[in-house]
Amino acid sequence: MTTLITGGTLVSATGRTAADVLIDGETIAAVLTPGSTLLGHDLAASVDQVIDATGKYVIPGGIDAHTHMELPFGGTNASDTFETGTRAAAWGGTTTIIDFAVQRTGERVMDGLGAWHDKAAGNCAIDYGFHQIVGGVDEDSLKAMEGLVAEGVSSYKLFMAYPGVFYSDDAQILRAMQKAADLGLLTMMHAENGPAIDVLAAQLVAQGKTDPYYHGIARAWQLEEEATHRAIMLADVTNAPLYVVHVSAKQAVAQLAWARDNGKNVFGETCPQYLYLSLEEQLGAPGFEGAKWVCSTPLRSRAEGHQEHMWQALRTNDLQMVSTDHCPFCMKGQKDLGVGDFRAIPNGIGSIEHRMDLMYQGVVTGQITLERWVELTSTTPARMFGLYGKKGVIAPGADADVVVYDPAGHTSIGVGKTHHMNMDHSAWEGYEIDGHVDVVLSRGSVVVDETGYHGRAGHGKYVPRGLSQYLL
Amino acid sequence: MTTLITGGTLVSATGRTAADVLIDGETIAAVLTPGSTLLGHDLAASVDQVIDATGKYVIPGGIDAHTHMELPFGGTNASDTFETGTRAAAWGGTTTIIDFAVQRTGERVMDGLGAWHDKAAGNCAIDYGFHQIVGGVDEDSLKAMEGLVAEGVSSYKLFMAYPGVFYSDDAQILRAMQKAADLGLLTMMHAENGPAIDVLAAQLVAQGKTDPYYHGIARAWQLEEEATHRAIMLADVTNAPLYVVHVSAKQAVAQLAWARDNGKNVFGETCPQYLYLSLEEQLGAPGFEGAKWVCSTPLRSRAEGHQEHMWQALRTNDLQMVSTDHCPFCMKGQKDLGVGDFRAIPNGIGSIEHRMDLMYQGVVTGQITLERWVELTSTTPARMFGLYGKKGVIAPGADADVVVYDPAGHTSIGVGKTHHMNMDHSAWEGYEIDGHVDVVLSRGSVVVDETGYHGRAGHGKYVPRGLSQYLL
Amino acid sequence: MTTLITGGTLVSATGRTAADVLIDGETIAAVLTPGSTLLGHDLAASVDQVIDATGKYVIPGGIDAHTHMELPFGGTNASDTFETGTRAAAWGGTTTIIDFAVQRTGERVMDGLGAWHDKAAGNCAIDYGFHQIVGGVDEDSLKAMEGLVAEGVSSYKLFMAYPGVFYSDDAQILRAMQKAADLGLLTMMHAENGPAIDVLAAQLVAQGKTDPYYHGIARAWQLEEEATHRAIMLADVTNAPLYVVHVSAKQAVAQLAWARDNGKNVFGETCPQYLYLSLEEQLGAPGFEGAKWVCSTPLRSRAEGHQEHMWQALRTNDLQMVSTDHCPFCMKGQKDLGVGDFRAIPNGIGSIEHRMDLMYQGVVTGQITLERWVELTSTTPARMFGLYGKKGVIAPGADADVVVYDPAGHTSIGVGKTHHMNMDHSAWEGYEIDGHVDVVLSRGSVVVDETGYHGRAGHGKYVPRGLSQYLL
Amino acid sequence: MTTLITGGTLVSATGRTAADVLIDGETIAAVLTPGSTLLGHDLAASVDQVIDATGKYVIPGGIDAHTHMELPFGGTNASDTFETGTRAAAWGGTTTIIDFAVQRTGERVMDGLGAWHDKAAGNCAIDYGFHQIVGGVDEDSLKAMEGLVAEGVSSYKLFMAYPGVFYSDDAQILRAMQKAADLGLLTMMHAENGPAIDVLAAQLVAQGKTDPYYHGIARAWQLEEEATHRAIMLADVTNAPLYVVHVSAKQAVAQLAWARDNGKNVFGETCPQYLYLSLEEQLGAPGFEGAKWVCSTPLRSRAEGHQEHMWQALRTNDLQMVSTDHCPFCMKGQKDLGVGDFRAIPNGIGSIEHRMDLMYQGVVTGQITLERWVELTSTTPARMFGLYGKKGVIAPGADADVVVYDPAGHTSIGVGKTHHMNMDHSAWEGYEIDGHVDVVLSRGSVVVDETGYHGRAGHGKYVPRGLSQYLL
Repeated sequence: MTTLITGGTLVSATGRTAADVLIDGETIAAVLTPGSTLLGHDLAASVDQVIDATGKYVIPGGIDAHTHMELPFGGTNASDTFETGTRAAAWGGTTTIIDFAVQRTGERVMDGLGAWHDKAAGNCAIDYGFHQIVGGVDEDSLKAMEGLVAEGVSSYKLFMAYPGVFYSDDAQILRAMQKAADLGLLTMMHAENGPAIDVLAAQLVAQGKTDPYYHGIARAWQLEEEATHRAIMLADVTNAPLYVVHVSAKQAVAQLAWARDNGKNVFGETCPQYLYLSLEEQLGAPGFEGAKWVCSTPLRSRAEGHQEHMWQALRTNDLQMVSTDHCPFCMKGQKDLGVGDFRAIPNGIGSIEHRMDLMYQGVVTGQITLERWVELTSTTPARMFGLYGKKGVIAPGADADVVVYDPAGHTSIGVGKTHHMNMDHSAWEGYEIDGHVDVVLSRGSVVVDETGYHGRAGHGKYVPRGLSQYLL
Repeated sequence: MTTLITGGTLVSATGRTAADVLIDGETIAAVLTPGSTLLGHDLAASVDQVIDATGKYVIPGGIDAHTHMELPFGGTNASDTFETGTRAAAWGGTTTIIDFAVQRTGERVMDGLGAWHDKAAGNCAIDYGFHQIVGGVDEDSLKAMEGLVAEGVSSYKLFMAYPGVFYSDDAQILRAMQKAADLGLLTMMHAENGPAIDVLAAQLVAQGKTDPYYHGIARAWQLEEEATHRAIMLADVTNAPLYVVHVSAKQAVAQLAWARDNGKNVFGETCPQYLYLSLEEQLGAPGFEGAKWVCSTPLRSRAEGHQEHMWQALRTNDLQMVSTDHCPFCMKGQKDLGVGDFRAIPNGIGSIEHRMDLMYQGVVTGQITLERWVELTSTTPARMFGLYGKKGVIAPGADADVVVYDPAGHTSIGVGKTHHMNMDHSAWEGYEIDGHVDVVLSRGSVVVDETGYHGRAGHGKYVPRGLSQYLL
Repeated sequence: MTTLITGGTLVSATGRTAADVLIDGETIAAVLTPGSTLLGHDLAASVDQVIDATGKYVIPGGIDAHTHMELPFGGTNASDTFETGTRAAAWGGTTTIIDFAVQRTGERVMDGLGAWHDKAAGNCAIDYGFHQIVGGVDEDSLKAMEGLVAEGVSSYKLFMAYPGVFYSDDAQILRAMQKAADLGLLTMMHAENGPAIDVLAAQLVAQGKTDPYYHGIARAWQLEEEATHRAIMLADVTNAPLYVVHVSAKQAVAQLAWARDNGKNVFGETCPQYLYLSLEEQLGAPGFEGAKWVCSTPLRSRAEGHQEHMWQALRTNDLQMVSTDHCPFCMKGQKDLGVGDFRAIPNGIGSIEHRMDLMYQGVVTGQITLERWVELTSTTPARMFGLYGKKGVIAPGADADVVVYDPAGHTSIGVGKTHHMNMDHSAWEGYEIDGHVDVVLSRGSVVVDETGYHGRAGHGKYVPRGLSQYLL
Repeated sequence: MTTLITGGTLVSATGRTAADVLIDGETIAAVLTPGSTLLGHDLAASVDQVIDATGKYVIPGGIDAHTHMELPFGGTNASDTFETGTRAAAWGGTTTIIDFAVQRTGERVMDGLGAWHDKAAGNCAIDYGFHQIVGGVDEDSLKAMEGLVAEGVSSYKLFMAYPGVFYSDDAQILRAMQKAADLGLLTMMHAENGPAIDVLAAQLVAQGKTDPYYHGIARAWQLEEEATHRAIMLADVTNAPLYVVHVSAKQAVAQLAWARDNGKNVFGETCPQYLYLSLEEQLGAPGFEGAKWVCSTPLRSRAEGHQEHMWQALRTNDLQMVSTDHCPFCMKGQKDLGVGDFRAIPNGIGSIEHRMDLMYQGVVTGQITLERWVELTSTTPARMFGLYGKKGVIAPGADADVVVYDPAGHTSIGVGKTHHMNMDHSAWEGYEIDGHVDVVLSRGSVVVDETGYHGRAGHGKYVPRGLSQYLL
């Protein structure tokens, strides 16, 4: 099966090229002068199918490096399975996810990884990889970390929040980072001071402040900033590279910038919700409505300017990536567990389907350049997590994960419109995007085009990852 | 004429790809799976010539964005003509230069630009573009700036140093920046407090401190840092993007980092001399020897750690590029004008031939990654100065400026060894590089290979540049 | 003549003491346990007069270290003479001023100083000293600086603003600072980038933006911040202590804080207008009304938070003092020179009478402590400018400059109320103070009490000053 | 009993005054013009004793705000009792100590305070107060904090180090700070990341790195800096003022400076050992010798410049005070518990006797001014901890705690020379001081003079303290 994508503008992390893309089977075979009859060879006539991308952008498929399919949390599970979640991802131009396998105190790391393989295998519409959550750092799990790279898992995550669930104390963090530094593993960090947050949250509830809004109050920016600084210093002591997930406070960004100004391998991701949504507007919505947007780190105050600062940090590369932290829960039967106590609201927002569109809207509004869009959503995720070459770039030998994006198209987000995630609501209801995902190819197969979804569960394969290719 | 470069590892700013490069005439026609018979078409058999790059890196030709051929300075002229200088550049894997046309008080901008076209036309071995020095900001020159973009000159340079020669005061800088912001021109700045330096220099000479070493003492880091900050603030007032040339002081880098942390379009370049050479060792060499390394900004103290900090800033992107500030003068008849008074030593070092090698050595020693090498020396220069697409990348449609670089080769720098610049000495005598420029193509023509130099004066063409493609 | 002040609370820079103060002639003879019969000696019965300060604060008289009596500016003269200005000062609890003698290009420094002695001698109600403005740095004036300390003038001022009037370029500043560092003189700096400001101001006027408001727009905070940084770096190169006058931009404070965090002898003063008044409210008053508040540095935007930041900096000692920059002009015949062109409005606000009250109001509102009030307005000015021991403290041997301040009193500021300055308006009209200056003694003489003003022109004497006692 | 100290130079935190001091009973009755016959009253003839201070400094007695008499630590007790320790203090010109009462998990706060009263009562040569260590934050101890102010204990201390002994986790710290903010208590913090340190220490010992030197390696500066930042942010969340004890890392000072630049009530003390001694020289002494200088925070690397930075921070008021952290242990029988395992070496250095001298030597060498010496060692301690008025100043009504210090004297520190602490060695052996404590008065009684020690156990009384008088 051969495919030629013609007439489009290839957008990479560094620039734009008018070029055709030749796909042979599952991989990209060549990138060529547009419309060329290559040395007399009429390619368009030779291939099995031609995709016309005239007037459109041709970009490497999106990589969402932070998803939580079927995550057990707060007595329920994230509502997207690997099947529903990856299908929604494909609809939105994302062709690879990296999900988090879970280990907790008393569990074995490799059991957790195995369980996640079991959940995903045969169910995914697009390719997938795994990070490993190490939620119980002890001798056994430290030892088990040594096997992760061989399993294609080159990154793992610790939590400074959620005492009693995923939390690691500083002694545990230090030991895990030492091990990671030895192995070349990238340490991902949920940087919030959980013990302090839990005190504040309990006090708020005791005061009758139980609405979703107070979720944001309890998780004060100071406690994100503090944990970010602490993670940076522990990384400094251990010489371990550090990747801070879901950064939402501008003061936390300042800590990352400070570390980078001092030459440290410290990186940060943010998520669409921290770029667009706010404490006042969404978390503070009337009644229990705000529960839709309960996630951690929380949405931040617009009056304090965090959202604009996140965009700025994306421009200056103080933040390197945009992931979703996709962790969907339905309002009915899930989010509503927290009626009367915001602490019981499952934490998470579903965005996997809309990340590419939401970030493209930042191009439209001038927040980021077209190149930066590709870099933030695909190329850097590939480099950061050891997928580059295979993913994250349109180049010979790479997997033919390609998206044709139409800047003249339009996308209306919302339930009943473009909503394919397994949720009874959308956190992005009403958002309008001045662009459209036209065609999505996963390893050479068209999974989405103007006629609809053509993918299938099981097409997506596990992608073992190498070590980070982004270190300074 | 068609050429196929086979078997090499393409290195871009973001990663590596095993791929062949097909060149048709002066441009790149395709990038393809290595050794492929493309859809049954045996490319190697079809092309006019095949270059075997097995085991080697295939990179976009170097772009040296800061050169001064034949620059009048201190009563003499830089010793490289466009012919000798661009030939040396080609030898070293640089396939494009951007030289500085000069206007001074009382002169007309377009006359200066015309004069530089006259000097370069028909003489260059490789392609060239121009920045415009505006050394006399007044109504006429401000008006003339309006014509620069149409001439393919999208950047211009001001000097905060050299009162009476190129110097602009803050009122002039402000007005020029306002104009540049309107036009989309990128403001390049020589950031040193010239009036203060001249006082210190005169005092040193009056004290009998006339050796080259005192050139570095007079030009204290505080006066680079100060001017850098001032340029940043004037840029902030006018909303003009700013590019600071030849940054050498770590404190100046701190100012750039601060500006970027605050979201400003502020950029900086450094040069090989600031990465390797020092005040103590080179400027402080016995007798008049230090004159070889008199340049401005000056070499900085190794004890103060500037050199290591420059490398760090290159890693963290607080500095974005490495140019040479190539401005060669012979010791005999030129540098020796300053015997007895360091102020009369023509300022400049010749490095155009060695930049690619010297920076590659940073890859060998682990200071930067292979990708960053390409980014610093070619891709970002192209983006920064509006050449990307045509230059700075190996992609269909781009000029076939390509270098085959052998990581298993070796290069010994020095007069009588690899020295093709028109200088009676080398500032880099004795430097050994663990790599080698094997083949250099300029717009599809092999100008250097293992058998020697095959270029010719006049092959190189003027390249009009578009606006910067690197702005945040 | 002996006086006993009884029953009050002595407030010093470090704390409060219930104590009586015994004055013998012009100096303080003792500070004693309140109401004490000292070793059997009934002091109250022995002295010539007793001042009852029960329930009141007894503080060292205010020192206003920045005044401009009769300053020639913009074709007119500041409207207060030494007679009217010092009388108003006395009314307000200020017992010492340090005024600025003026030298400009082509004038001799000692002539300027002599002229100021002539203006002041025999006319002052309170003691006075002089700083020296060096508005034309050249060989002669540099030489003349050598004589200043012997004249009791231990500080001098340079201007980075007002090209063609008081302006010094960086070469001049550098040379003056070198000289000052040798002599122990404290360099005072008007830190605004004058050349840049003049460009912006001319452009605004050319655009028809001639109202007083645009005075504040032309003098952007960036240009104060920049000049502050530049002054700091020039001071660093020369090892000269630096005192920045009338700081109004929070970003300029950040520069001062940065310098101090790095151990530099860098100090800053602010003025009441920068603590209370704003660009929007006062400079932006309808019509020409804003002219009342045209001063340089200008009032800053309240929306940007400068005023609150100035208070904060006073608390954290990033600013060390509060002076007035008293430079009054009448609206009629003076300020109105600038109708139609804000550049022609004489720069200056009159506050000498109200500084102690306005700062005390900061105690009432919790912005500063009672001790800090005394420190900012009297003790630090004395230490900074070499008067401590004689002034700025209530201690044996000190001049008996004492104020009895009633925290239960009240002061209404405004023309026809408490206004004794020679101005046809008050910049502080309508301000209400929750405190009152009850009694003012100058060198042992009561010059103000509840029955009115008892001072006289000529009572005030010239006070030669020693070197700064505040250096780190 | 009346005493007149004549002819000396009174040094306060702000300046110097030639004045006599009259003492009546236990308090200061007056400060007077020197040699005065006050209103005809010949004081010298009237008093019971005259102390001639001609040519000498008369200063408020030293206040050492950080001592640990008889502290149980590591299975032994600090070797100075209140009797021996306060006597040594008196010898050295310190007239007040604030010692730490201890509460630990499972103990009651008021029991701890009571126990410390029992240890001190009747045994002290000089006055004393208490801080309260809260080493087990729980409902009971939080409740008990409410009674501290009434007991004259206005400050309490938490530990981020020593897990299992004094350690509080972040939840505990947050709750304690909330309570403190409500009560006006000042939170003192031992800021080191104990859990991380304990991991590193155990690893070092496991590697056979058991010498005292490794105590300093395990307690890396990063872990002091981190904890300092964390304490600042927790204080920010709770609006609690913060006082960081025994700061030794320059990076920790940078955090304090940053907090203060942002207007926070954050303070820091350092100790003589961090100004003079180093990791390389003392902790790294041959064999087990380094144990003498095992204290926490540890001595820092001189090569990294911490010592010079501490002096600088004292000058710029980024550190406000110098205490000793006096916690003496003998080498024999105490320090030697840690032969073979540095973790078992009792932590502590004895300096109570030498603080005033060691800091005065900083005046001699130009590190601080004479005024700053008094401020750092007496006036600010008094203000910070609610003693001002009674202590920390020479003013009417204050306790007559006075030291006559001879700048022409000399002091040789060392066992058998000036050593009165109950230790078998001196951490300061061989230090020579260009000054001498001549006379020490405690509440009007001469306890030390040229003839020796005249104090007695029990003269010293408990001093209840008020709230901090130093808050911004």
